[in-house]
This record gives sequence, structure tokens and C-alpha cells, in this order.
Amino acid sequence: MSREYIKPNAWSIIEEGWNPDLVKSSESLFSIGNGAMGQRANFEESYSGETFQGSYLAGVYYPDKTRVGWWKNGYPEYFAKVLNAPNYIGIDIFIDGETLDLAAFDRKDIRNYRRELNMKEGWYERTFEIDLSEEKTIKVIARRFLCMNLDELATINYSVKAIKGQMRISFQPYIDAGITNEDSNWDDKFWDIEELQSTDHQGFIRSRTNKTNFYVCTFMQSELYKNGEHVQYADHFDKNDTVVRHKVATQISEGETATLIKYAGYTSSLNYEHFEILDAAKRVLHTAVEKGYPQLLQDQKEAWAQIWSMADIAIKGDLKAQQGIRFNIFQLNQTYSGKDARLNIGPKGFTGEKYGGSTYWDTEAYCIPFYMATKDQKVARNLLKYRYEQLDKAIENAEKLGFSNGAALYPMVTMNGEECHNEWEITFEEIHRNGAMIFAIHNYLKYTGDYSYVPEMGLEVMIGVARFWHQRATFSQRAKKYMILGVTGPNEYENNVNNNWYTNYLAKWCIEQAVNHLDKVKSGHKKDYERIVGLTKISNGEVASWLEVAQNMYEPYDEELGVYLQQDGFLDKEIIPVSDLKPSQRPINQKWSWDRILRSCYIKQADVLQGFYFFEDHFSREQLEKHFDFYEPLTVHESSLSPCVHSIQAAHLGRMDQAYQFYLRTSRLDLDDYNHEVEEGCHITSMAGTWMSIVEGFGGLKIINDIPSFTTRLPEQWDSFSFKINFRDQILKVHVTADKTTVTLEGESTQDVIINGKQIHLEPETVKI
Amino acid sequence: MSREYIKPNAWSIIEEGWNPDLVKSSESLFSIGNGAMGQRANFEESYSGETFQGSYLAGVYYPDKTRVGWWKNGYPEYFAKVLNAPNYIGIDIFIDGETLDLAAFDRKDIRNYRRELNMKEGWYERTFEIDLSEEKTIKVIARRFLCMNLDELATINYSVKAIKGQMRISFQPYIDAGITNEDSNWDDKFWDIEELQSTDHQGFIRSRTNKTNFYVCTFMQSELYKNGEHVQYADHFDKNDTVVRHKVATQISEGETATLIKYAGYTSSLNYEHFEILDAAKRVLHTAVEKGYPQLLQDQKEAWAQIWSMADIAIKGDLKAQQGIRFNIFQLNQTYSGKDARLNIGPKGFTGEKYGGSTYWDTEAYCIPFYMATKDQKVARNLLKYRYEQLDKAIENAEKLGFSNGAALYPMVTMNGEECHNEWEITFEEIHRNGAMIFAIHNYLKYTGDYSYVPEMGLEVMIGVARFWHQRATFSQRAKKYMILGVTGPNEYENNVNNNWYTNYLAKWCIEQAVNHLDKVKSGHKKDYERIVGLTKISNGEVASWLEVAQNMYEPYDEELGVYLQQDGFLDKEIIPVSDLKPSQRPINQKWSWDRILRSCYIKQADVLQGFYFFEDHFSREQLEKHFDFYEPLTVHESSLSPCVHSIQAAHLGRMDQAYQFYLRTSRLDLDDYNHEVEEGCHITSMAGTWMSIVEGFGGLKIINDIPSFTTRLPEQWDSFSFKINFRDQILKVHVTADKTTVTLEGESTQDVIINGKQIHLEPETVKI
Repeated sequence: MSREYIKPNAWSIIEEGWNPDLVKSSESLFSIGNGAMGQRANFEESYSGETFQGSYLAGVYYPDKTRVGWWKNGYPEYFAKVLNAPNYIGIDIFIDGETLDLAAFDRKDIRNYRRELNMKEGWYERTFEIDLSEEKTIKVIARRFLCMNLDELATINYSVKAIKGQMRISFQPYIDAGITNEDSNWDDKFWDIEELQSTDHQGFIRSRTNKTNFYVCTFMQSELYKNGEHVQYADHFDKNDTVVRHKVATQISEGETATLIKYAGYTSSLNYEHFEILDAAKRVLHTAVEKGYPQLLQDQKEAWAQIWSMADIAIKGDLKAQQGIRFNIFQLNQTYSGKDARLNIGPKGFTGEKYGGSTYWDTEAYCIPFYMATKDQKVARNLLKYRYEQLDKAIENAEKLGFSNGAALYPMVTMNGEECHNEWEITFEEIHRNGAMIFAIHNYLKYTGDYSYVPEMGLEVMIGVARFWHQRATFSQRAKKYMILGVTGPNEYENNVNNNWYTNYLAKWCIEQAVNHLDKVKSGHKKDYERIVGLTKISNGEVASWLEVAQNMYEPYDEELGVYLQQDGFLDKEIIPVSDLKPSQRPINQKWSWDRILRSCYIKQADVLQGFYFFEDHFSREQLEKHFDFYEPLTVHESSLSPCVHSIQAAHLGRMDQAYQFYLRTSRLDLDDYNHEVEEGCHITSMAGTWMSIVEGFGGLKIINDIPSFTTRLPEQWDSFSFKINFRDQILKVHVTADKTTVTLEGESTQDVIINGKQIHLEPETVKI
Repeated sequence: MSREYIKPNAWSIIEEGWNPDLVKSSESLFSIGNGAMGQRANFEESYSGETFQGSYLAGVYYPDKTRVGWWKNGYPEYFAKVLNAPNYIGIDIFIDGETLDLAAFDRKDIRNYRRELNMKEGWYERTFEIDLSEEKTIKVIARRFLCMNLDELATINYSVKAIKGQMRISFQPYIDAGITNEDSNWDDKFWDIEELQSTDHQGFIRSRTNKTNFYVCTFMQSELYKNGEHVQYADHFDKNDTVVRHKVATQISEGETATLIKYAGYTSSLNYEHFEILDAAKRVLHTAVEKGYPQLLQDQKEAWAQIWSMADIAIKGDLKAQQGIRFNIFQLNQTYSGKDARLNIGPKGFTGEKYGGSTYWDTEAYCIPFYMATKDQKVARNLLKYRYEQLDKAIENAEKLGFSNGAALYPMVTMNGEECHNEWEITFEEIHRNGAMIFAIHNYLKYTGDYSYVPEMGLEVMIGVARFWHQRATFSQRAKKYMILGVTGPNEYENNVNNNWYTNYLAKWCIEQAVNHLDKVKSGHKKDYERIVGLTKISNGEVASWLEVAQNMYEPYDEELGVYLQQDGFLDKEIIPVSDLKPSQRPINQKWSWDRILRSCYIKQADVLQGFYFFEDHFSREQLEKHFDFYEPLTVHESSLSPCVHSIQAAHLGRMDQAYQFYLRTSRLDLDDYNHEVEEGCHITSMAGTWMSIVEGFGGLKIINDIPSFTTRLPEQWDSFSFKINFRDQILKVHVTADKTTVTLEGESTQDVIINGKQIHLEPETVKI
């Protein structure tokens, strides 16, 4: 089913051979980003074939007017989406006056076409040779990267070598603000162009987003080299309404190479006053030119070496698994650097438009562990802070749905905290997302031990969320219990159900967390406590009313099966395992009408099992096994977020074959294009789940009373695997082979760890079990 | 809350005084139609104020591309909607070269403004006087009607009298095909204009609908009169891309009147070959001119007299109730004449665009009794035939949702049998509509005794529907019963619920009906039976599998309360009567978000009670009372279809005050604009429910073993009421006063009737009880 054309390689993603049908897929897979901006692997030169153009600037969005069939009260007016930003990679190539356009050539005339995404060093390169005519053959090498250490800067090194014949090469580097989003709802214009400038080999476009008024300066500057020697050239340029274009030409003989180096990028009003962005752009160009391309490339390699030194997972004996995990880690680092608390992790990162580049509960439920363990712990704190800063908007979201008294409902999809999504069964009902916000805090506290987040920020979030659950529950006279009616659980293949166990359990737990932390802050952080009481007007009576709900929360359970039920009506469904479904019926989200999916027993992604994943320590191994055996066979895993949780649980249950299969599926989802949709972009947030599959599944990482514990399991397909985690500013390196697990401590103080059940006191040295 | 500006009058709808804020409301209320076409009461002359222009031609529709926020598998590609058809009423008026435009005058300059819709005679007239200047005052009288006996013809009589001063009056009658729909999804062009012609005082536009290729010829011809004398005039005209316009001018002195009579209308390819429509239009104009306006008006009066002689309901002692019921009966007759089995009854008739002029289950559940009792019984048969002719499309609709073997799902909204609606919770889940199709057949058989419909057409529909229910039910291992999961009942304020009692009960009953009628047709109509078996490949085994489902259908019931439950989870809701809701919270469909509505106990329209209405004879009076007392207090009646059912049931339970209140609400819903939305059009289908409130509620009509039974109840606000019904081609006239009920038989043979429990043998004479 999958489409495997990427060459297995430990450190690179490689495509070989020219196939125009793969252009859009490769544009996704070879995307590059530096956390602040990113772009699909579109060609620099003209391409008249099928392509999906995309350059994105983190945090710059447009509130596109909502499109619906039938309006429902409470729908948001706007869907905030990351914009397709001005194109700065463009370099049109003319050879003896003819445009270079791969789509204009026969397939046989294009030889040694190759793309490489070098993940170790952080650059992307495309090479190919073309017979332009009987007399003329060229070789193109185009390498580019977005500087990890200079957020606003990209560099492109575009070389044309005359392999046969002599020719005049004209480079036309340009920047273009005349771009549109493929997913615009109403064909609105997203950008207004304020000014185009071209001076001294530099070009600038100042543009402004409509409605949101983000100001962006797109800039470029070019250098010409001939056989590696810098060549001065006279400045020719032209401008039209949306484009600034330079013209640089030179003559080369057979064997000679002409190279254009283009420095380009964006400065924006996210980081400067809007009237300063042009000057800021000039400063970036000045730095770029001063450093020069070789030094920038060297910096890039070092920056990535530093990332890998912390984040790498090495797998021996399974090249495809190795490539998969590195691709995932690479993309996560390209998408989000954690430097800026205003940013977050869009499900497609900088690789496509789908999901609007917005923030989902994916961040809290799947991504935080990765960033927490492979980065400075400030990064995870920034992710939590993002939601704290949007608390007011979460309260507004809840008010729109009729809640009051500071109840907060975090959005399903958002850019600035306002809800953007407009399917009632999700927008209004997939409210479990609110619980993930609290789980992430809990996870953060457990992992980092940094309690300061709670009195400073987290407690207010907990209070808003507890208030929401308290108001959202209703008392059933029939059952004498509190129920949560009309919800959609993580399994979006059931809608508007009553008492989704995951939601009810999480709601109850959220209230308990809020109450516990209120007590802790009261006793330990008096000043913060008083501030928060003043702000939220919380009272003992209110807390008691929350506890009444939490203590009497209904949990659907079947005595006979001994399992919690996904929702009240689950057992009235016809329970037929996925293995009995005909292959022609799958994926059901493409083959079945929505109502048929809804009344079926099939589960899109972990739901009850998601609860067991979050709270594995609340349940016995036997309970986990029973629930896994009941629900997994009914799960179609049609969400990219599903296999990872199942991989971890299968590993914990010692079902290594199953765990390995789930791992492969999650780690190579995009590389092997399992769902035939990689053209639209990569599944960035599920990549964090892949990381969890190894670290929490095969590595068995848990934090037990402030002590990291590893219960390791090696898939038989592997010789060994190793990973590092940053635990409270010390580095633990874990190496697992069939017969031993080694944990090395890099740090300054000692650290206790539990390795396969045995507690060990680690000095900064190696311990073997 | 309501807006009462219509003057009470037994036979007319009257507005007095010029108020531009009421123009759009009055455009709806004063709409006219003749079953084949209809139009809002737009002004003939120019009007630059707020207006909602609408002319509609029955059966001519456009498949507008569906608009959705998020696509779900199974959604229809298109929403078929009745088009705004070319405007033929336009007559621009120039007085001494100045355009007459009411919006251009001060309110005080417009005197004696008055609209009258004369329901008795079937015409609409607007009169007003304007001081054009200190020296010039005119009086305008504009009357128009759509000929009931000449489907394609409308006439307009537009007079301008010089009350003060002398002046040149220029009439510019025109036809205009440059029209659009306000509700176009994608701003598509719905019409292509093929040809504009103007000859001999006549004008024609041939146009064609895009995609559906309906050809329509819009035509006009005018006559000029001065002080009642026919005046010859020279033909001036002009044309542009979309308009044919004639110019007719005359000079009048003080006291004199100039009158333009305009004959206009449509011929279409519904009734002719497309190349014949122009000739057909000429023939219509020839007939019109030959008859002349006075005779056409006389014909109109006679046609309506005939309708009223059968359909009128007279109420003494309550003018507003009288006006209400006549308005309802009048609109129903304007909307649907029953002559053409391709047509049906749109929820807004010819009074607006909302609901796209499409067919809903309203027809089967609410409208059929009215047409059955007040028209020739062929009319009701035509309504049933409409669905029979769409059976193939119903089978396709079911196939799109994964059903097979000839299972049929009638559409929620349709023009040609294909489903048009695109909200999954309605399109895919409000499947009870399928049961209404069978109920209508049952109703028809009971009322008319015309069994021939079943072997000829009805049985095939019953088989398709039974197959659907059989496949749609699923077996619950837990309950050992068949259940229907994931539905929306008639109460659209609950979505995707399990075991909606109404749906389950109806499904079971539909299967039983199909089985019974299969037996009947087998024994009584052998040839039809064989044809149907050949066509449907039905077998005894299949029928047995249906019965297995019907006999083991689950019915949610609460022992403690002794009531059937609207759905499985109903009693877990917080049950708080509507009377406890703050007025500020209502209507909840405007004040609450959708999720809040869904998890509330509030009912939009009769649901369990709808079942008790259909099948009152299946239950005891005590059961009806218990269910009415449980559900009605939870009902917000935010559907126009709700009050009528409750009025009937309240009457049957002897709760006459409640019955009367519900009656008023349904009968004057539009006249008093209860919901502040009459601007969008009138609620045509619920008007049939108003008729039922009187005939079935206060008149207590039931057919018991082929005998009409009347159990009469007079609201204390009334002195008397009377109505007629056509029962099997004989007329029964029922007159009810406080102390007696009189039934008169007009016909040729005797008829037994039951009057207040007593069976009487009627000769064609009067019987008093």
C-alpha cells in the first residue's frame, strides 16, 4: 500500500531519479525549517509542472472567514491560518536565453537527478544533469538551508556547471509577494504589498497581512561566483507589482561553473516595530554577507551537531527504522525550537497548509515529552506558557458556549487562543482537549520538578479548567451520578456520545489536580495564592462543589467484560474485529459514509487506551492487558496519532512484534507515504509520538517519585538502540542491547535511576546491568 | 413578541399606512401563486428601498454546488434549489420624466397606502396617493393575479390617476432575466439568456438554466387605457443583455386615469419541447388578449369560489382565528394545485428562497390530509406518485450510504429525488422520514379506500423502505434486541442518538406494513404481485428476516414513569420544564450554542408525541395523557410544525384552552410574525397543520373502519365553526356550535358517519345531534 521511493540511509533522506509524479511528495518530505520559518522543497528555478508552493513564517497568520454549509450557534467567525508567505527562494535560470524548466524536458534528458536532505548537517541539496541540446549539457547543484542560529536567514547556493559546450548563464534571483493560499475559503487576498525596493544587489518587499496587520519584510542579496571566485557584477533589476528581480549573467566554458549565492529571508513585526523591519532586514543581510556562505554552512553543521548530541536516537541493525526516527527528530527540531513562547507546533509544521498551521491538543498530549527530554527544560515551560497566555481567550471560548464564572475551554484549533474549528461535534464537543492542558502540566512537574510553574501560571489554568468540568457535568437523577453528556472523545469516529470514559475520567482527575494544587500553593506560595484568590474569587464553597462532581463522576464500566466502556452505548454496537473487515472497506474514512462509521465499533485512535497511556500507574498490568485486548482489535488507526500509543502499550505488555509493527508504521508514515497524502505535508505532531514509542515504549521511561526508571525491551529486529534524555539539567544516555542496558550520566551531581526494576545510584559515570 | 400590523378581516389580508420597514415582510405575506408559479409581493414600479425580489417557477431548479466547512463522506455534490425566475411584473413609471419610486419620497407625502390580498377572489392590490409636488398628486391602484385556470398567465392592472394637476404618464413594462438568487452558494450564474425578442407590443426572453437545461420563455404584452377606454399606441422598445422594455406614454388631466394592463408569465420546457416555448407563449398571450382583463378577473373569482366551496373553514365569533385559517388555506392552494405529479410543496412555497423550494417529509406527515380532504382524491394520489417516481433515486441515496439490495432511503431535502442536504446529523441520520412515506400511503388508503395505489406503485415503495430498516437495524448482544443506532428523530435538538423511540416504532411498523401488503397483493392482485416479485427478487426468506427485526425491535421505555423514552439517554439529562427557563434564554436556537441545546432536555417539535399522533389508535387515552404530560412541558415548539400536533392532542384530551393557544400560534405564525422571520417567506407546510388542528383537533375527524368519525370540541372563544371534507367523492359538511354538531351530506349515495360516538346513517340531507 505504501509508496517507498526514499533510499534507506542512516543520516539522509535521498531520492534518486527524475519522476515528475513525485515532485509534490518530495516537496513535503524534503521541507526545511528552523523553528521560525520553513518551506516546502519547491524548486528555485521555474517549474511549469505540478507543484504545491509553500513558504511559511511562524506566528504570522490570517483570520480567514469561516466557511460552513449550515451555521450553528457558537461557530467561530474566523479560521486563523498560517499564510503562505512571500517566496524568497526563487532563482530563474536562463541558459543562452532559454528558461531552465525541468517540466520542459523529456525524462531521458534529465540524468542523475537526486535530492538529499542531510539531517546530520541540516541542509537540502538537489542535483541533476540535463542535455540541453546535442551540444550543451549542464549539471546543477542547488543546496540551501535555513540558519538554525540566525532565525531570519536562509542561504541558497545554486551552481551551474557546463559539462559540455559553452554558454551564457543568466541568474534571476527574485522575491515575490504575489502568493496565495491553496486553502483560502473565499478567495480573499491575504497580503497587501506596501513597498518594493531594490538597491545595491539587494531587494526588499514590505508587505502587510490583511486584518491581522503583521508586517513582513522579505529580503534578498546575491553574490556571483565563477569557478569559486567571487565576481563583481553590475546591478540590473526590475520590479512589478509583486516581484523584485535581479539579473546576473556570466559566460562559462566547458568545465566551468557559475554559482549564485543568495541570502534571503524575512524580518517581521513579531520581533520589531513595524517601521523597523526594513532596517532589520538590512542588518541580517549585512551579517550574512560578512560571515559568508562557507561560515554559515559551518555554523549550521555545528548547530545541528549540538541538537543531535542531545536528541539523537541510534538504532543498530535496522536501517529503515534508524532513518525513520532520525527523520522524525529532524522534523520536530525544524518545526519548533522552543525559543519563542508565542509559537507552537502545527500538525504539518512548515510542510503544508493543512490544519492551518494551528495549535492542537497534539502539543500537550504528544509533543511535550520530546521537547522536555531533548531540550533545555525552558522549552517545555514555554509550551506550557503558551496556553497560560491564552487563558483569557479560553475563558472567552467557554463564554461563547454559555459557561460562566471563569470556566475555560481551550480551543480545538487555534492560532491566538480563539477557537477556529467549525464542526459542532468537534468544536463544541471534543472537550477532552481541556484535560490534556492539565496533563501536560502534571507531566512537566513530574519530569522537571520545576514546581514554580504552578503558582506562577499553572494554577490559574487548572482553576479555569476545573470550573469548566464542574459546569459541564450534569447530574443524572436516574444514576445518581454526574455525567458528561454530548461529547466526542479522542476517537472521532463517535460523535455526541454520553459518558466517554476518557473524558469523564480526565474531568474528574483535572478537578482533583486543581484542588490538590490549590492546597499546595496555599501552604507553600502564600503570595501567589492570595493573588490567585483575588483574581479568580475562588472560595471553599466553590471547591467543595467541584469535589462533589469529581467524587460522584460516572464511569461507564461493564462488569461482565471487566472493561471501562468507551461510552454508554458502546456495547450496543455490533462488535466485529477489524481483522474481519474486508480490505476493500479500508480505510473506512474513505470508503464509508459518516453515519456508518459512527454507528460502527471502529476506533480511529486510542481512546480508553489513551487514558491508560496517560494514567498507566492508576491501573494494574492486568487491567491494561484486558483493555488493550478489548479495544486494539477494534481500532483502525486512521489517525497518525494512534500507532504510537499502541506501540508503547504493546511494548509494556511484552508484545514486541506488535510494538515493532506499530513503531514502523508511525516512524515511516510519511517517508513511505502510508496514507497517500504526503503531498499535503508531513505529520509533524505524530513524529513526537514516534520518539515516545522508543523512549517510553522500548526504553520504558517513567518518572517514579522523582527518579527516572527504564524498563527496556529490544525489538528482535534490532541489535541495539540508544537515546539520551535531559533529566533536570543532567544528561542520561541509555544504551540497550539484547543482554544489557547501559545508562551513562553526564552531569555534575549524582542521580538515582531505576534500571529494569533495580534502583541505582549513578555517579557521573557508566553503570551496566 | 409578535408584530401585528395586519388588519383583522374575514376574507382579506390588509396592510394600511406606508412603512418601509415592513416592505420585506409584506412582500412575503402578500405573495401570490397558482401552483405552477408564484411571486413575492414586490412592487411593479422601481423601488430603491430594501426589498427581497422573488419570482418562482415550480419544477425549475438548479443544482447549486454544495458548500461545506468540512466534507463528510456521503454528502451530496449539489443542493437543488428553485431558481429566482425572470421578473415579469416590472412596470417602471415616469411622471413628467421623473421615476416613481416610493423610497424617494418622505413618509408624509405617501398617503392612504394600502395592500389587500383578497383571498376570496384571489387577487392582490396595492393603492396609494403621492404628492409629487405642490401642484401634482396622483393615486395609484395596482392589482394583479396569477390565473388559477391558466397556469402560465399573470395579469397586472396598473392605474395612475391625476388627483391634482395634469401630467404625462410613461409606463415602461419590462421583462428581465438578469436575476440572481440571494442564496447562491458560490455566486454561480444560474441562467443563460438565449434570445430576447420584441414585436407588436409583445416581449419575449428565452432563457435556459445552467446544468439542468430547463428552457423558459418569459413573456409580456401590454394594453393602454385612458379613463377606461382602450388607446392604441405606437410600439417603442429597447433591449439590453437581459431586459426587454416597452415604452408607452400618455397625457392625463386632473381627474383622469391612465391604466396599463400587462399580461405576462412563463412557458417552459417542463410542458413543451424546448423549441416550442416561444410559440406557446404567443398562444397564451393570444388567449389572454382575447379574453381580456375583465373576463380573466371574473374567471379568477370563479376559480377561487370553487376552491372555497370545498376548502373553506368558517369560524364565527373570532375574527383573527378566522383570518388565520383562511390565510393558511389560501396559501396552500396557491402553492400546490395537485395537477402535476412532478411538483410538490416547498416549505416556503412561492414566498421565498429558504429551503430551496425543495420537498421535505412535511408533505407526507403534514400536508397530505389537507389536500386529500379538500380536493379531488387524485391530488393526494399525485403526491404519493411523486415519491413512487423517485424510488430509484431513493435506492441510489441508500447505496451512497452503503445499503444494498434495493433498500431505499428517501431524501431529507430534494427536488428530483436525490438527497440535497448536507448536515450529517440530518442527511444521514434523520432517517425517520422514510417512515413518513409509508404512513402517507396508509393514511391515503384509510381515507380514500383506493387500494389500487398499492399494487400499482405503493408496494414497491414499501419493499424498498422495509429493506432499508432491516439493514439499518443492528442486533445488540447486550439487550438481545434490534436497535437503531445513530439517528436524529423529529426532534432535531438531539443528534446521533440511539433508539429514538419514534424511529424504532415507525421502522417496526413499516416492516409490518410491507409484509401485510405483500400478502394482500399476493392474494388480490396476482399479476402485480408477480411483476413486483420479478422486479424486486423478494423471497419468503427475506421477508422472514425483516420480521425477525420487526418482532424484536427495541423500544426504550421507563417502567417507573410509564413512558416511552425519546431515546436511550433521555433520562440522564437534567429534566427542567420549559416554564422554568428564563425568557432571556429563548428561543434557545438563537440564544444557546448547539452543544448546549443537544444536551438539554428541550424538544424542538413533537417526537414521541408525533408517534402518538400518527398512531393514536395504538395507544390508550391514558397513555396519550401520560406522554403528553411528560413531553409537552419540555417542548419549546421552535419548529413551525410543532404546535399543530400539540393542538390536536390537547383537544383530544379535552384541554381546550391549551388547544386553542396552540391553534392560534400555528394559524397566525406568519401573519403576526411570531419568529421575526416572515421577511424570508411564509411557513407553507405548517399551514396544513393548522388545517389539521381544526379538522382533526376540534373536529375530531378520524376514519374508523371506513367510516368518518367526528368527535367535536368547540373552543370557548368561538361561537361556531364549520368545515367540509371530500370523503370518497361525497361532501360532508360539518357545523359545530356549543350545543350541537350538524353534518350535511352532499352526494349521491348514503354514507355512515360517527358523530360524537354515535353511528348515523346519512342520506344526502342534514343530520343534527
